Amino acid sequence: MTNLTRADFETLDKNDTLAPLRDQFSLAQDLIYLDGNSLGVLPKATAAHVQQVITQQWGVDLIRSWNCNQWMQKPAQLGDKIGQLIGAEAGQVLACDTTSINIFKLAAAAVKMRPGRSKLITETGNFATDLYLLQGLAKLLGDQVQVVALPREQVLDAIDDDTALVLLTHVHFKTGAMWDMPAVTQQVQQHGALMMWDLCHSVGAMPIHLDRVNADLAVGCTYKYLNGGPGSPAFVYVAKRLQAEFEQPLTGWLGHAKPFDFNDEYQGANGIQQAMCGTPPVLANAALEVALDVMLQADLNQVRQKSSHMGDLFIQLVQQRCPWFQLSSPVDKAIRGSQVSLVHDQGYAIIQALIERNIIGDFRAPDHLRFGFTPLYLRYVDLWDTVDALVDIMTHDLWKQPKFLAKQAVT
Amino acid sequence: MTNLTRADFETLDKNDTLAPLRDQFSLAQDLIYLDGNSLGVLPKATAAHVQQVITQQWGVDLIRSWNCNQWMQKPAQLGDKIGQLIGAEAGQVLACDTTSINIFKLAAAAVKMRPGRSKLITETGNFATDLYLLQGLAKLLGDQVQVVALPREQVLDAIDDDTALVLLTHVHFKTGAMWDMPAVTQQVQQHGALMMWDLCHSVGAMPIHLDRVNADLAVGCTYKYLNGGPGSPAFVYVAKRLQAEFEQPLTGWLGHAKPFDFNDEYQGANGIQQAMCGTPPVLANAALEVALDVMLQADLNQVRQKSSHMGDLFIQLVQQRCPWFQLSSPVDKAIRGSQVSLVHDQGYAIIQALIERNIIGDFRAPDHLRFGFTPLYLRYVDLWDTVDALVDIMTHDLWKQPKFLAKQAVT
Repeated sequence: MTNLTRADFETLDKNDTLAPLRDQFSLAQDLIYLDGNSLGVLPKATAAHVQQVITQQWGVDLIRSWNCNQWMQKPAQLGDKIGQLIGAEAGQVLACDTTSINIFKLAAAAVKMRPGRSKLITETGNFATDLYLLQGLAKLLGDQVQVVALPREQVLDAIDDDTALVLLTHVHFKTGAMWDMPAVTQQVQQHGALMMWDLCHSVGAMPIHLDRVNADLAVGCTYKYLNGGPGSPAFVYVAKRLQAEFEQPLTGWLGHAKPFDFNDEYQGANGIQQAMCGTPPVLANAALEVALDVMLQADLNQVRQKSSHMGDLFIQLVQQRCPWFQLSSPVDKAIRGSQVSLVHDQGYAIIQALIERNIIGDFRAPDHLRFGFTPLYLRYVDLWDTVDALVDIMTHDLWKQPKFLAKQAVT
Repeated sequence: MTNLTRADFETLDKNDTLAPLRDQFSLAQDLIYLDGNSLGVLPKATAAHVQQVITQQWGVDLIRSWNCNQWMQKPAQLGDKIGQLIGAEAGQVLACDTTSINIFKLAAAAVKMRPGRSKLITETGNFATDLYLLQGLAKLLGDQVQVVALPREQVLDAIDDDTALVLLTHVHFKTGAMWDMPAVTQQVQQHGALMMWDLCHSVGAMPIHLDRVNADLAVGCTYKYLNGGPGSPAFVYVAKRLQAEFEQPLTGWLGHAKPFDFNDEYQGANGIQQAMCGTPPVLANAALEVALDVMLQADLNQVRQKSSHMGDLFIQLVQQRCPWFQLSSPVDKAIRGSQVSLVHDQGYAIIQALIERNIIGDFRAPDHLRFGFTPLYLRYVDLWDTVDALVDIMTHDLWKQPKFLAKQAVT
């Protein structure tokens, strides 16, 4: 393997067909942002659109906007746009609530659809909220179900005919390791269980084909690779073939078949609408819509190709120049998401030292330095420059300054 | 009772100490907006602040904003501001999720705090989502609890030692009828049950003293009298003395004692923080903060006084000039919220005819014309002009035009 030079990365940028998309994002030229897998960058068109929704739709049209500006229809409309990004035909996705709440809805519905089965299987070290919501549900239901959380390599063997649901995050938040979605889905279904995919760390970073893999249930967030904005609405997917028996317990008025009849008895709407609960967040939906429209301009196969290539290059650079780190992500791009994580027991301080140089990656306790590759706005030279900075910081022990060592909460 | 004239209303406006607050809202001069009890009006400062949060905090500060711009702290900070409006000392209120979801959290927690008790009591004709969420919870818990929904006048007598929770909306969404909060709370507690107040239609319209009445639990929304914006975050109140035993089942990562440790086992945070679930909606929180800061400038006793007076005057005018309508709201201002509702079987068409004249009230199926009085931006002359328009519309049967009769969903 020949040694790479910065010129190689400049050439890659020149030939990058996705490069023009960077212009649609508001991102300082001197900033290297490798944290789009935690909070995506602001699309340039967002501010003006949200402003219009605030000043005209809310300020002038007021209450009429629920109809005339289709505020009420947005969760389904945005859901269908997200559907295009995850291989879901219309009518199976809603933009609503948070990933956490949507996990609860789907897990509770899964328990109901698989009566008599007691296991909710997931992986230890999964993103914490996935574990916690299953635990919250199990506790609420008493002895009816139990959470079985196992190390990654033991998960598949544990699936049996007593399994109601398997919940896995498609791409692991810390390591970037990716599950084989078609194979796992099939294996879960062979045991008569339901599979829920958490797509938080893969949606927008690669093509996903929920319908094609015969998926059951999925959730995900929109503020990472989708650039919907901080705390933007999450989404929920329920396969068409399950919708007739799908019943989730957060039976808010907007999941009712006829919400404006104000009947005393809940009667769930048909289809994915039953996954709705309360009143939709209009301003957040406005920001999300702009972001999805940008995302939909990109070919997700190209996105995946660039992201995988970036990961390969970053790993190659680290292996050539950074002996201080252990690689936590898979080397094989076929099972790696759109991030590369390095392990170092002083990871926090090292990330802080990078941030001071305007290179933003993030830290995940206790020891992960996480670098996300977001092909819509990341340049190949950013990878070179990041590793260059890392080499400098490590060679000269620059991270040992007290200001870098002092810990505070980082998201 | 002497007949009122428009001049009387003009005089009231001149002497109205709250009148200057109208300048802080973006509201067309020729619009009479009597639907602030459904969607509050846009504060003038909102657009610029949200813009700043988008372009600077998100666009430039990016992921660092969770700390440097206190995005993570907003739910508690906004909660404490709401607390000032509902008589709750700091540390008992969070701004989060939707009213629907918060009802579920608190109802589930109440069942757990009152083991062995089977009744969740509420009122038929309550706002639908309140009924639906209790039904969703009861269904999820199997035979453990049942929802007992009774006509308003039978609710109090039904409370017994088998009652775990009573959920009532402080001010009724259709009629504006108001419960006696101290007396009802006391009666519920005398039976060892817990009381949950839904404050959607009272918060911001009157002083509320949750701590003083020894309240247990409360929820409410912020997009009505609080002007937080369409679909703005709801809030949740848990009395300090209950927080040690409070456990809600939507155990998302941000309700964890140490969310950034990413432990596999959920361990609830101390205090009100355990009511948090997923990632907070930053843009919506920004709009809400501006609105709360406007609201906090008003003396809620004055707000209540003006609102009650407006209701009295509106009723007087209707009684004098509008024989076509039946009054659905209490005449006694002591038990009436900040709205007056009229009943007419052609209510929908009549409201549409008013809207064409730039007078916005709203319709609640099957026959309620609902007029909300929002003292921060409503003028006394608006009441006169509204009744004047109603008289004209009714006298000349103007509502019978086909365009007014055609129904569509109205929120």
